[in-house]
Amino acid sequence: MEKYSTAMKDPVFEPDRSVEARFQRLRTEFESQGMRKSVDAVMVVTQHGFPHVLLLQLGAFFKLPGGELKPDESDQEGLDRILNELFDSHDEPSGAKWPAHAVISQWWRPNFDAVQFPYIPPHVTKPKEHKKLYLINLPSSRRFIVPKNYRLVPVPMFELYDNKESYGQILSTVPQMLSRFEFNKET
Amino acid sequence: MEKYSTAMKDPVFEPDRSVEARFQRLRTEFESQGMRKSVDAVMVVTQHGFPHVLLLQLGAFFKLPGGELKPDESDQEGLDRILNELFDSHDEPSGAKWPAHAVISQWWRPNFDAVQFPYIPPHVTKPKEHKKLYLINLPSSRRFIVPKNYRLVPVPMFELYDNKESYGQILSTVPQMLSRFEFNKET
Ligand SMILES: [Zn+2]
Ligand SMILES: [Zn+2]
Ligand SMILES: [Zn+2]
Ligand SMILES: [Zn+2]
Repeated sequence: MEKYSTAMKDPVFEPDRSVEARFQRLRTEFESQGMRKSVDAVMVVTQHGFPHVLLLQLGAFFKLPGGELKPDESDQEGLDRILNELFDSHDEPSGAKWPAHAVISQWWRPNFDAVQFPYIPPHVTKPKEHKKLYLINLPSSRRFIVPKNYRLVPVPMFELYDNKESYGQILSTVPQMLSRFEFNKET
Repeated sequence: MEKYSTAMKDPVFEPDRSVEARFQRLRTEFESQGMRKSVDAVMVVTQHGFPHVLLLQLGAFFKLPGGELKPDESDQEGLDRILNELFDSHDEPSGAKWPAHAVISQWWRPNFDAVQFPYIPPHVTKPKEHKKLYLINLPSSRRFIVPKNYRLVPVPMFELYDNKESYGQILSTVPQMLSRFEFNKET
């Protein structure tokens, strides 16, 4: 990752221990706080002349860095907090900013399960979660201090594209969502 | 289509009679003029409270209204010309404008064949075609005078989404490309 370096720190664990626990917590929190809002960060780095998206790898599973907003937190505040939890030093927090450049897509979860759509389906009046994917403006160099239970891997667009089997419905269409931006240059 | 009405006019034919002829012309023109530039129009109408995309139907085949730019034509000039050829009266041209709101995705065709990607694949130095999809700002009402060899059909997002088999690689991911816009409202 040329101008981006990585180091390792203590693990950062997901808030839920199982998929079941995850949807149970979503249900409990929905009853007390209403719809969950979450933000995911799409960070693009150029490697050997080609755009790559930074993904967190946990075993065979890949995901965008991101998480849930706290009540009353703005999207940008949430992005800064969540990305610093993931990539800042536990011991010497830098208070770095992760400025959002643009929303590249939104997803809604109608039920307390894994299914999400890039629209609110007809007859769904109370989505359980609303997620926004933000393209982040990365500085020209940055150190990522990665929890040691994850790997941070740059995945090329052509690996994600149309690869729902390996990356799922959202990640496999990130190349389409990003195609309007400048890093897709003709040479 | 509530505030959008349609009428019929004489057919407007594609410039090429077969898929073979299409790629042969692309090859010939590439040799004399270089990469083809084309524009497609994404027009969203709300029907029974849900966003739909207007598609041209020709038999079992669906496509976005759009076409090829002439040399030195701007994207907006091309959109206006192509959409008026399709939807204006042959006899009393209105000179209507079809203002582009935003690019929602771009596609590149590396070879003289059907395959397109939302990025320029590595080692492709001379794409043969570059297509931009534009979200068009529709006026609150409009009459579409449709060539009688086509039907203009509003297709709901949920019909397009993840339906590559019926709509192909590009149309089936239009819902993702559009999810960042306002018409995806929570109720
Ligand atoms: Zn929302
Ligand atoms: Zn690579
Ligand atoms: Zn181009
Ligand atoms: Zn409908």
